[in-house]
Amino acid sequence: MTGVLSYAVSRLQMLSTSDHSSIVSMNLFVALLLACIVIGHLLEENRWMNESITALIIGVCTGIVILLISGGKSSHLLVFSEDLFFIYLLPPIIFNAGFQVKKKQFFVNFITIVLFGAVGTLISCTIIALGATQFFKKLDIGTLDVGDYLAIGAIFAATDSVCTLQVLNQDETPLLYSLVFGEGVVNDATSVVLFNAIQNFDLTRINSQIAFKFIGNFLYLFATSTLLGVFTGLLSAYIIKKLYFGRHSTDREVALMMLMAYLSYMLAELFYLSGILTVFFCGIVMSHYTWHNVTESSRITTKHTFATLSFVAEIFIFLYVGMDALDIEKWRYVSDSPGTSVAVSSILLALVLIGRAAFIFPLSFLSNLAKKNPHKKISLREQVIIWWAGLMRGAVSMALAYNQFTRAGHTQLRANAIMITSTITVVLVSTVVFGLMTKPLIRFLLPHPKHTTSMTISDPSSPKSFLTPLLETGLDSEADLGLGGHEHDVPRPNSIRALLTTPTRSVHRYWRKFDDAFMRPVFGGRGFVPFVPGSPTERSAPPAQWE
Amino acid sequence: MTGVLSYAVSRLQMLSTSDHSSIVSMNLFVALLLACIVIGHLLEENRWMNESITALIIGVCTGIVILLISGGKSSHLLVFSEDLFFIYLLPPIIFNAGFQVKKKQFFVNFITIVLFGAVGTLISCTIIALGATQFFKKLDIGTLDVGDYLAIGAIFAATDSVCTLQVLNQDETPLLYSLVFGEGVVNDATSVVLFNAIQNFDLTRINSQIAFKFIGNFLYLFATSTLLGVFTGLLSAYIIKKLYFGRHSTDREVALMMLMAYLSYMLAELFYLSGILTVFFCGIVMSHYTWHNVTESSRITTKHTFATLSFVAEIFIFLYVGMDALDIEKWRYVSDSPGTSVAVSSILLALVLIGRAAFIFPLSFLSNLAKKNPHKKISLREQVIIWWAGLMRGAVSMALAYNQFTRAGHTQLRANAIMITSTITVVLVSTVVFGLMTKPLIRFLLPHPKHTTSMTISDPSSPKSFLTPLLETGLDSEADLGLGGHEHDVPRPNSIRALLTTPTRSVHRYWRKFDDAFMRPVFGGRGFVPFVPGSPTERSAPPAQWE
Repeated sequence: MTGVLSYAVSRLQMLSTSDHSSIVSMNLFVALLLACIVIGHLLEENRWMNESITALIIGVCTGIVILLISGGKSSHLLVFSEDLFFIYLLPPIIFNAGFQVKKKQFFVNFITIVLFGAVGTLISCTIIALGATQFFKKLDIGTLDVGDYLAIGAIFAATDSVCTLQVLNQDETPLLYSLVFGEGVVNDATSVVLFNAIQNFDLTRINSQIAFKFIGNFLYLFATSTLLGVFTGLLSAYIIKKLYFGRHSTDREVALMMLMAYLSYMLAELFYLSGILTVFFCGIVMSHYTWHNVTESSRITTKHTFATLSFVAEIFIFLYVGMDALDIEKWRYVSDSPGTSVAVSSILLALVLIGRAAFIFPLSFLSNLAKKNPHKKISLREQVIIWWAGLMRGAVSMALAYNQFTRAGHTQLRANAIMITSTITVVLVSTVVFGLMTKPLIRFLLPHPKHTTSMTISDPSSPKSFLTPLLETGLDSEADLGLGGHEHDVPRPNSIRALLTTPTRSVHRYWRKFDDAFMRPVFGGRGFVPFVPGSPTERSAPPAQWE
Repeated sequence: MTGVLSYAVSRLQMLSTSDHSSIVSMNLFVALLLACIVIGHLLEENRWMNESITALIIGVCTGIVILLISGGKSSHLLVFSEDLFFIYLLPPIIFNAGFQVKKKQFFVNFITIVLFGAVGTLISCTIIALGATQFFKKLDIGTLDVGDYLAIGAIFAATDSVCTLQVLNQDETPLLYSLVFGEGVVNDATSVVLFNAIQNFDLTRINSQIAFKFIGNFLYLFATSTLLGVFTGLLSAYIIKKLYFGRHSTDREVALMMLMAYLSYMLAELFYLSGILTVFFCGIVMSHYTWHNVTESSRITTKHTFATLSFVAEIFIFLYVGMDALDIEKWRYVSDSPGTSVAVSSILLALVLIGRAAFIFPLSFLSNLAKKNPHKKISLREQVIIWWAGLMRGAVSMALAYNQFTRAGHTQLRANAIMITSTITVVLVSTVVFGLMTKPLIRFLLPHPKHTTSMTISDPSSPKSFLTPLLETGLDSEADLGLGGHEHDVPRPNSIRALLTTPTRSVHRYWRKFDDAFMRPVFGGRGFVPFVPGSPTERSAPPAQWE
């Protein structure tokens, strides 16, 4: 009868997925996610809070409760894994950002964005690494080698795109959003190149040849990552247009778009490219072509599904970071010398502030020099906001710090423990303090944002609202998503008209001609999908509109 | 400089998620999923094929290719994990089934479904276990104890709900679908009770007391699982109605519905209940209340997102099962005596056929006895289809077999290897052969399905089509999802009218009164959401309809 018993036990274990404590954790985590959504909704009217801070605070509170219940043993439910973060949570967030980004705004500021993301990150990284080398030697924190200092530079130079999405609003401040968020995306490509360079070149003697190689490497990586994203996006558009899935099933279309988007990210990782850059451009191409080839139901579904997945992933990250911050293991070494830890954290925060200021203001000045139209220049007030809004360090910094300072082989436990706790402190302080102050700062510096476009802001208090009635939503997105669109038919406020009279207009016109003549007939897009009687595809874009 | 180098290497490794081969696997797997969707679409016109068989065949072909490339070492990309299956893939499939099920059809046949799922599974399990004990002793397959034989009974008595969804069509044969699928859902509760019973009672001396305890246990588990599902469903309806998320964000509503559905499954697992039963009833309640409290965009999004997730999970399962079938490790022991393996597989297939026949026909007879109306009785032809459509064994059987015959502690390797390969053979043969023959069998036995309801079948060749224009889809679903609906206002064909004249009608009427008087005012539902000017919520359900 023991066989029966052992079978029964094993069956029960299997039903409880081999480990009942993991079920408990998952239940608690899902319940906390729900709590974050409900509380975040209730606090939406509050001008200081945002969802990420709510999640972070709930995470810290839960961590305290778990710490008390477990008798000071552990404070987190799930083990923080880089795989979880880079493979499952980050791609939907970046893809959705590309899918919903105002493409015109993004491409008009393209040069400034690349300047900030590539040159700016290098400047910031150098300043932080040098500053840390200088100051940490005077503190008693154990031995750190050159690699560790470079790593500190990289960890704290990375602008967190996820945080940007939370504090800046695309509808209210489109210029600032596109600059800071775009910088975060390009920054990822920079860091891949940076570490390739560290691996391949001897950085102790930098000469012009190495600098050229470095620039060449960056351009190669940027181009290939972008092309891969564009290619997968176009492929999805072509498949859906040719096979015309809409005739049969919305589910297939949605599944195809989701899987293709994910494939683009994974392919980039496969070829050691920048997955973030790839999936971002894949999102842009999909919203310009693929999205117009599917049925009305598929459009609504994909738009909201991508947004929801991104939303849940963001909350998940902040909740986790908050919960993990209290992990007792890391604080054990620090408790002996709390002064050192505070000093290290303060130095790092100061370096982050200085490092970012050191490139935002000079590069903005350079960018303004190239612009003739005064309306397009980045004002000092906007520069301050760009500087401030990119200060937050989030889950990307955490993941990098864990990778550098907890991996096997590193035996200087004291220095590592201090670096981990300092990273947590910087992440918490920057997200909560800087994050809380961003919204009021924007309201203080830009009481009437001058760059508001004509995009319908149905209700300024609910920026993420999609509540506009169905067909209107369709038309809205059409206008928004039409990169080569026909916005000049529609009356626009002054700032946009001014924008269109600048030289970028001619580039834009050539692109539109090319798009209409070659791209759209092949890959579909607004108004280029064959009309099928009874098909809802044509509803939000009647042919009369583009004739 | 080694520090920099090691940092660079570790950073690159992190970017490639600590293990580049897992990135390769994931790329291939996502690409295969895409191939299954495209090929499944192209083969849709084919009357024999369905998506699961396509995925299974593609899986087997890929397995062969990987086997050849790796030089006979391995044939699969991912390690089959019960967690992956029971925690991530199964819940969306079952929830979606509950969300889209025709509730009236399901509740009208409730008693028959429970009879099949509870009593039927017991009969089938007993016959297969006894038969295996009898026949396997004569074959030289090593030692199996009582627990193993009971396990064999359980493994092969489980009707696979996932397979049922693939071969039966809710619109064409609603009665058969609700009976076979419902049986699969109830069957899960039965197996939990069965193993609880094996663990707690001495089954060698069965008396009336133990039988009563067993029945009591089953009723308790059935009731608690159902109530938990209903409770979480109602809670989601209440939260969304009270906070009225629609005013702010579709994303929040969709996220809340998804997370609540998942929470119901995880809570059931936490309390050792039947997660499948819970999430199924949660889906039913959500479609009846919650779904009507959200915005039009949220409705379209949730409907298609749940369907898409379920669709991808199904393909994933079949693709994986196909790929895993060729794993060389398992076939090594069997290659010595191929005759034994064929004999074991044939015996099991025969026992599955007999075990299912042994309860379908007697229980259908019993069920028919209780019905006065000849239109409601299950005809012999329908009984044959019910028998045949439930014969497929799929991923659930695989997961159970792996759990029983590969766990540590079992050392009789030969018997275990034979049981694993036999399970794979039974799964492949039953899915491909029985699956391929189900559609033609239905067409042969029921050329003009008498139970077709008035639900609009826009295009019979594309059963899963959602292509009906937007508002029409809305109204369709309204009619479908209205459990306490007002179908008697609409002219119906004879079979439905006959259905309504039976005693179940009075139960139905009482439920509707209760629903209108108490439930809907509290939890929302069709026509009970407060009208907000400009809100799209009321569009597909004008108040005039329920006044």
